[in-house]
Amino acid sequence: MSPSPSDSRTKRSGRRRNPSAVSSQRVVDYRNLKNPFPTMSLFSDDRIEAMHHAALELLEADGIKVLLAEARQIYKQAGARVDEGSQMVYLGRELIEQALSTAPKQILCKAGHPSRDLTLELGRLCFQPGAGAPHATDCERGRRPGSADDFAELVKICQHFDVLHMMPPIIEPQDIAPHLRHYFTMQTQLYASDKLPHIFSRGRAQILDGFEMLKTARGLSDDEFTASSHCYSIINTNSPRVLDSAMAEGLIDCARFGQMTVVTPFTLMGAMAPITVAGALTLSHAEALAAITLTQLTSAGAPVCYGTFTSNVDMKSGAPAFGTPEHFKASIVAGQLARLIGLPWRNATGSAANINDVQAAQETQFGLWGTLLSGSTMIIHAAGWLEGGLTVSYEKLITDLELLQMTAELCAHTPSDDDAIGLDAIREVGTGGHFFAAGHTMDRYQTAFYEPVISDWSNFGSWTEKGSRTATQRATDIWKQIISEEQDCFLAAGFYDEVESFVRRRSAEGGAPPLS
Amino acid sequence: MSPSPSDSRTKRSGRRRNPSAVSSQRVVDYRNLKNPFPTMSLFSDDRIEAMHHAALELLEADGIKVLLAEARQIYKQAGARVDEGSQMVYLGRELIEQALSTAPKQILCKAGHPSRDLTLELGRLCFQPGAGAPHATDCERGRRPGSADDFAELVKICQHFDVLHMMPPIIEPQDIAPHLRHYFTMQTQLYASDKLPHIFSRGRAQILDGFEMLKTARGLSDDEFTASSHCYSIINTNSPRVLDSAMAEGLIDCARFGQMTVVTPFTLMGAMAPITVAGALTLSHAEALAAITLTQLTSAGAPVCYGTFTSNVDMKSGAPAFGTPEHFKASIVAGQLARLIGLPWRNATGSAANINDVQAAQETQFGLWGTLLSGSTMIIHAAGWLEGGLTVSYEKLITDLELLQMTAELCAHTPSDDDAIGLDAIREVGTGGHFFAAGHTMDRYQTAFYEPVISDWSNFGSWTEKGSRTATQRATDIWKQIISEEQDCFLAAGFYDEVESFVRRRSAEGGAPPLS
Repeated sequence: MSPSPSDSRTKRSGRRRNPSAVSSQRVVDYRNLKNPFPTMSLFSDDRIEAMHHAALELLEADGIKVLLAEARQIYKQAGARVDEGSQMVYLGRELIEQALSTAPKQILCKAGHPSRDLTLELGRLCFQPGAGAPHATDCERGRRPGSADDFAELVKICQHFDVLHMMPPIIEPQDIAPHLRHYFTMQTQLYASDKLPHIFSRGRAQILDGFEMLKTARGLSDDEFTASSHCYSIINTNSPRVLDSAMAEGLIDCARFGQMTVVTPFTLMGAMAPITVAGALTLSHAEALAAITLTQLTSAGAPVCYGTFTSNVDMKSGAPAFGTPEHFKASIVAGQLARLIGLPWRNATGSAANINDVQAAQETQFGLWGTLLSGSTMIIHAAGWLEGGLTVSYEKLITDLELLQMTAELCAHTPSDDDAIGLDAIREVGTGGHFFAAGHTMDRYQTAFYEPVISDWSNFGSWTEKGSRTATQRATDIWKQIISEEQDCFLAAGFYDEVESFVRRRSAEGGAPPLS
Repeated sequence: MSPSPSDSRTKRSGRRRNPSAVSSQRVVDYRNLKNPFPTMSLFSDDRIEAMHHAALELLEADGIKVLLAEARQIYKQAGARVDEGSQMVYLGRELIEQALSTAPKQILCKAGHPSRDLTLELGRLCFQPGAGAPHATDCERGRRPGSADDFAELVKICQHFDVLHMMPPIIEPQDIAPHLRHYFTMQTQLYASDKLPHIFSRGRAQILDGFEMLKTARGLSDDEFTASSHCYSIINTNSPRVLDSAMAEGLIDCARFGQMTVVTPFTLMGAMAPITVAGALTLSHAEALAAITLTQLTSAGAPVCYGTFTSNVDMKSGAPAFGTPEHFKASIVAGQLARLIGLPWRNATGSAANINDVQAAQETQFGLWGTLLSGSTMIIHAAGWLEGGLTVSYEKLITDLELLQMTAELCAHTPSDDDAIGLDAIREVGTGGHFFAAGHTMDRYQTAFYEPVISDWSNFGSWTEKGSRTATQRATDIWKQIISEEQDCFLAAGFYDEVESFVRRRSAEGGAPPLS
């Protein structure tokens, strides 16, 4: 196994060898990640069962308020007790157990290019940047209400990085009228990205418009469209225990057309949920089960993700907080509940910081580790999210991307064969030497290590000479470079024209005001 | 189980109840932490065995260079093959296996106060701030060579936070002459702190001085001193495969007097170690085994920690990097090797950033999670460390402390009993309400959540009104407050006088120059 000394010297010169022949080249595929981390438990299995049963008891005895008559009707037809006066729906546990048995454990999402397709199931890992912010901010233009330009730029930045797996509703383009906004956001996602697009559940008319645009852009028949998920919609409940009309309609419409919903009660411990991790997650779980049940009653087998977003508030001020120890614990418990029911699920990190500073970095990463150790399938708000979701920062988007890429590196195989151990190289270098010129190093140095986007490892002197710039300042350069690059259009000309024509017609007809 | 409606109303008023009667009060003890995280594996158990055997083979066939004649003699007397000409020591595997069987799996360290005593064993968790930096920096006074004043201030700050379990050699007080420096650093640690102090292995004379000071300060007989570890010494090998005289003497002297050594090869992949994780850790492991063996040959049962500090360099510039994916992987593999031999062990996080910015926060936390998931017993450089260890930042010390306290929160019990689930509270609040005034909340709100040191959760408007200050700027306020507080002296007057008198006498005798 060990080469003769002359072999060693040949290796030392190094460049004659073929690096691709080395077994231990670093190979990464940021587009397809499996979670390599052990899952953590906070509570014993029997207490997780107890929470599940408390949630079932709550739905059966105390019910959930459902504001949409059509949804109440669906629940009622399936056998739920409904009080039309109070809009309360009481769900027997057999209804929920039935729904959990038909909800798919594996969901295939078809994107604009096959390499961007996603399979969602326990054990997989997808990232999404910050979503739903009313404001955008960057170090050059400051904080402002989100605009169409911001939306378009941010879609371009998100498209740029493979480690962001899905398009989010990253900011709200407030300069576009609400009845036309959904055309713009879907067009932008379809033209400037080939990743899985998001569709807002803001009423049937908007959803059906979105589905039409998707079918047109992808060249799909109705049946082809419904056969897979071509987009996804985030569904929040109004905690505690209210499912509003827009969200209920989204659940029904997506289920009917085979499109994926991602059910996410947003529960802040001490505010709209109990102050305890166990209590907040029991409430969140109950709400999620009710929403998941509606999808399965609408269409058994409809793709739906379980989810939660549970953090805490500052009990002195009521201010929401993210990336806290309590947020971390809530993630872990949510993961235990998700594994109990076996569905793919979404979770989120976040930060309440007001700028991209050390607090922002610290909270986002702390929250991220909670989501990673909880076995989350889809991690939302993983990049760019500030102010508890009121702002997306261009710079934070870039610096968080570094963190996500570093995490993705940990998903890749690391060689441990005898060649990687490299006893011969250790012998070759001897005592007190260095490995820079060893053959073992020369064979691997070009691909051995992750190369950072933002981190600057130069020494203090060099860094000072370059202007003592912070990571946030360097991030400005990166996003400016990305948005200055020529815009790709990801739709073939024919499809592009058809989508344009559809939007022109529908806009002329008056668009579709959101269901509030 | 569920109270009547009138009971609920009584609860709602809340203040009449005794919160201490609530089962789910948050109780934390930052001084005694057990690692709550699942341990991660990167390589299969048989490849870890293969690395261990490669290390044994290396020590047996290729040896390690030991610069201290006394150490070579100890190895030789135990049966190792020694070549005095080349200073090479060849260690048979039976010698190493014997040493691993006598090295204690549990080490008791006695600090200045019983509540600061530490038990080191697999499963425990201790943090230590950045150590060994030649420079100090803060936002008010800038970056400068470390001084006695810096050392004293930093000891005071480290003493302030329970989550830092041991005193480090945090910076080098360069304004004190090398032959007197060890008096100053030990005096400062003994006077301004009751935590476990560090002693440098810089030659026998300095070590014995330090032991005398410790015995004097703690009022211990020689036998009482040797019965437990009252300090610890970090031992670095000179990778690849050299054990220098000062380090070898430290291993021997600490072992003889029952004081704990912490063996830490510092191996940068691609520079002084193979470019692969498997190769670098095999080398590191071999060096650690050789050092551990010296302690056990000196005194079987001597307290010694296994350890590693393995990261990578930038292969373009040769610059060291920390908190990288490769550093993380190295931590995980080191943890697998530590569990194989069963010893308590040290690991480290770090950052190569030049200031306390997002890069610094990101790298330190990323590295920290590698150490946490590797089951490290003692995590060094966990706060304040910049520039790959060339500088300790006062502000980073504070912002990293937040991260360590958040981590310590995850070590505490989280209630999951029926009272914590709080179904009654969920019922009481009803649909669409809030939990702020619920009895379940009122009973717990004062202690429910971690209260941050640095994180500011106020909204953008309030934060702007307060001056738009970053986390780093707020950290300046915190350390200034701490160092402005009156200085405690942790030694009783009699012991203090005796230490002073010892130092005066030894200084007059010429002190003790370091062994280089």
